[in-house]
Amino acid sequence: MNTARPIWIYDTTLRDGAQREGLSLSLEDKLRIARKLDEMGVPFIEGGWPGANPKDVKFFWKLQENPLQQAEIVAFCSTRRPHKNAADDRMLQAILAAETRWVTLFGKSWDLHVTEGLNTSLEENLAMIGETIAYLRDRGRRIIYDAEHWFDGYKHNPEYALKTLKTALEAGAEWLVFCDTNGGTLPQEIGCIVREVIENLPPQTQLGIHTHNDSGTAVANALAAVTEGVQMVQGTINGYGERCGNANLCTLIPNLQLKLNYRCLEPEQLVQLTNTSRLISEIANLAPNDHAPFVGRSAFAHKGGIHVSAVARNPLTYEHITPQSIGNERRIVISDQSGLSNVLSKARSFGIELNKQDDTCRQILQRLKELEHEGYQFEAAEASFELLMRSVLGQRKQMFEIHGFQIHCDLLKECDILPDSDEFCNNALATIKVRVNGKELLEVAEGNGPVSALDAALRKALVKFYPEIANFYLTDYKVRILDGKAGTSAKTRVLVEWSNGEQRWTTLGVSTNIIDASYQAVVEGIEYGLLLKLPSQAAAV
Amino acid sequence: MNTARPIWIYDTTLRDGAQREGLSLSLEDKLRIARKLDEMGVPFIEGGWPGANPKDVKFFWKLQENPLQQAEIVAFCSTRRPHKNAADDRMLQAILAAETRWVTLFGKSWDLHVTEGLNTSLEENLAMIGETIAYLRDRGRRIIYDAEHWFDGYKHNPEYALKTLKTALEAGAEWLVFCDTNGGTLPQEIGCIVREVIENLPPQTQLGIHTHNDSGTAVANALAAVTEGVQMVQGTINGYGERCGNANLCTLIPNLQLKLNYRCLEPEQLVQLTNTSRLISEIANLAPNDHAPFVGRSAFAHKGGIHVSAVARNPLTYEHITPQSIGNERRIVISDQSGLSNVLSKARSFGIELNKQDDTCRQILQRLKELEHEGYQFEAAEASFELLMRSVLGQRKQMFEIHGFQIHCDLLKECDILPDSDEFCNNALATIKVRVNGKELLEVAEGNGPVSALDAALRKALVKFYPEIANFYLTDYKVRILDGKAGTSAKTRVLVEWSNGEQRWTTLGVSTNIIDASYQAVVEGIEYGLLLKLPSQAAAV
Repeated sequence: MNTARPIWIYDTTLRDGAQREGLSLSLEDKLRIARKLDEMGVPFIEGGWPGANPKDVKFFWKLQENPLQQAEIVAFCSTRRPHKNAADDRMLQAILAAETRWVTLFGKSWDLHVTEGLNTSLEENLAMIGETIAYLRDRGRRIIYDAEHWFDGYKHNPEYALKTLKTALEAGAEWLVFCDTNGGTLPQEIGCIVREVIENLPPQTQLGIHTHNDSGTAVANALAAVTEGVQMVQGTINGYGERCGNANLCTLIPNLQLKLNYRCLEPEQLVQLTNTSRLISEIANLAPNDHAPFVGRSAFAHKGGIHVSAVARNPLTYEHITPQSIGNERRIVISDQSGLSNVLSKARSFGIELNKQDDTCRQILQRLKELEHEGYQFEAAEASFELLMRSVLGQRKQMFEIHGFQIHCDLLKECDILPDSDEFCNNALATIKVRVNGKELLEVAEGNGPVSALDAALRKALVKFYPEIANFYLTDYKVRILDGKAGTSAKTRVLVEWSNGEQRWTTLGVSTNIIDASYQAVVEGIEYGLLLKLPSQAAAV
Repeated sequence: MNTARPIWIYDTTLRDGAQREGLSLSLEDKLRIARKLDEMGVPFIEGGWPGANPKDVKFFWKLQENPLQQAEIVAFCSTRRPHKNAADDRMLQAILAAETRWVTLFGKSWDLHVTEGLNTSLEENLAMIGETIAYLRDRGRRIIYDAEHWFDGYKHNPEYALKTLKTALEAGAEWLVFCDTNGGTLPQEIGCIVREVIENLPPQTQLGIHTHNDSGTAVANALAAVTEGVQMVQGTINGYGERCGNANLCTLIPNLQLKLNYRCLEPEQLVQLTNTSRLISEIANLAPNDHAPFVGRSAFAHKGGIHVSAVARNPLTYEHITPQSIGNERRIVISDQSGLSNVLSKARSFGIELNKQDDTCRQILQRLKELEHEGYQFEAAEASFELLMRSVLGQRKQMFEIHGFQIHCDLLKECDILPDSDEFCNNALATIKVRVNGKELLEVAEGNGPVSALDAALRKALVKFYPEIANFYLTDYKVRILDGKAGTSAKTRVLVEWSNGEQRWTTLGVSTNIIDASYQAVVEGIEYGLLLKLPSQAAAV
């Protein structure tokens, strides 16, 4: 029996998170995210603002047909319009049609926003809050009241701000949530204001906190409020949200649960956190932040010799929590500072058993150092490192052989001194000669520039033998010039990130010729993807 | 006279920041970053660990030849080895050879790290701290003492941890810095421990804080320490650093200065913050974080409608600070009204007089917005921006005309699945057709890859008319993939840095075809270099 104080997690990825510039979620995306959050045990999931957009209306219908397992799905809306009846407000009708048990209603706390934003009187704003809540309560809805611009409002006019909360409470709101809408408040001030406000509210009032990251302290702000007694935290997965984002639940939850010993999720749910973060970034089509606290790929990455052996002896020395508790893993970064023990632990993570005494182990390290000297950097390209390791061990199955390629770009056109780049597109041609299973193939393809032409030609040839290649796609393509001083003759390092919808892997290539470097990374990426499809024994043949 | 309490900013982008996975800085990059930080008024810049790597040794030599204007450049190192003399420690000799006034020495605070990491006794660790400081003090160095793993150490064995600090102080350290090396401590705990420790140290001891972001609270942690009386904050630009990064100075500085009224930078220096953040991300070849607090492109982005007019009436309603105070700008997501004053001030810096009322001014802005929409970014490529401006003003002299080019790479060779890149070199061929002074020229040249072949062909043609081209050389060549998700079809932005031995300039090109993007940057670079050779009036013909 866990006796820790419970904290209610309220996810608003689907509503406030979707405000992020550059993020757009389809109906299907929203449903997948909701189901994933439900599976992880998030108790409140804010689904959207039905009435404000048709997608959100449909989203709630879909969930009526196929309800979530555990979570309460919450509809979000604003108070009724000034000087209108709640019953005549189309938005509120849309809220009722969403048929959720819970509704989150937001209202104005800041007098300035009432008079300048809503253009109405302070009294009318109180009526809007009270009547809307009463109207929804009468129709069986349970209410969470989001006090918008709470901290700014309280600082400007504490009496009025408190009146809005008391109005919401008297009308039947079950939760009052302090929102730092502009994200400008710092943790200490959050703590002081929350403490003061609690003294002015009836005991046992259920309180929540909703913070934004404009000051870079959204997580710390939420923690400060929890310390003062708040029991609900609102935030988003990966901190998505308008401007600088909302409080990141992937950071907040482990801090609350593993460090401050509150109870948010069951331990077996918490283990899904890393995977949830990454899946949602895939769905949102945003590159995951490798450096994100707790769930980032680099969050438990260790470099160099001493670190690695110390962590192996006692993880406490260099790790603030156990990565497994949130479903992440310790990662030994391979770089030229790395020693034998790094190679061994890396091999283990690939399912390859090596012995430190073994000569091959030394050969791998040797080859690694040679390649790193040439500019290869395996730190971010583990798939290429695994291929290198298997190659030295004689465990690399040759799935295809490339006999060479030819690239042709013809840009002989009249052009300005400041050319319009569109004129030059779609004019690269790649020819490739491949042998698979004893059969030789010559293929040609066009592309936007030489690298995409090469990628297209290679796929065109290989997909006939390996249809799964059609499911591989490039999620990122990075180019770094090594020793920029050599100018256009400099060595180029290319990193390519891949996905097959389930797994992600990264490969690299290095050459003075960017086409050659890209070619290496593309070829290895396809090879590695094919390896993933094989049963693990076969992969190690 | 500003009477606010001063806080000393200590930047460790070049040392701790460079530990970030995937970040690698050349010597030239490091020097550029140091000069930019110096220009912004950062008082302490940690340059690296001379002795630990040859690049850092050279970095300090370069700064001996050409010192910074204002900032103290600091060398970083560890205490001497156990049971050795400081005088016999090669690392310490390298530190002395760096010839900095200040040295930051880090030592162990946590007993566990002394016995398990260093494999030595607690007594010997104290001797290592004391003797190393005394040795460096005797040789005229001023010492900042970084207490590594301070918070974990203090929690495990406060008596011993305090002893290490007192030893450092008695040996002559002028600053003691509390480091949360593993990044696991939360703000409240930071505050409590710092308060307790201050009570156990002599009054007036100068203290610093160094935090990491593993709990997502690095900035809040530093703020908590400052509130307790700490006067130095260590962090990095953009929060770069190992694992989840260090405290982000671009967030910390405005919080300290604009919200808590401490004094870090002069207001006219603070205005450079956004530009510094973006320039350093360009140099590091890392995509800027659009959602970064204060300096991100989306940090003050407002979406249409009510927001916008409310902000126009009273910015306070939706903005927590004035974006101009840190050199950022309000951005209205749908319309683009901002920028005229930027164009004007930029023009002034190029020696071009423009009038806000002038129609050309609006035309330049228009062209700029179009190009930025296509992925051009002129922040780091002022030479290209000047050419663009002169082009709109009809002040761009056409020194040559390119009628087109053709690239051919033939890599039809037998090769392994892991090809040796050397086999593929020197095999690109570029043909170019140029018209200069009414004369048409067809030239061909080879290169290491397509871009260098193109560069060679262009120079071969033009040098006949402009012999000074022989003195232009490329000092850096950077490639950034925009929207990496589009994979090998993504748009590519190429930045090329040039020098003629006296002046330096940077140009850019954007295209889905990397060859085309490079071509644009190379052509503009040569054109701009020729412009520099002309008397300034002629340049403005």
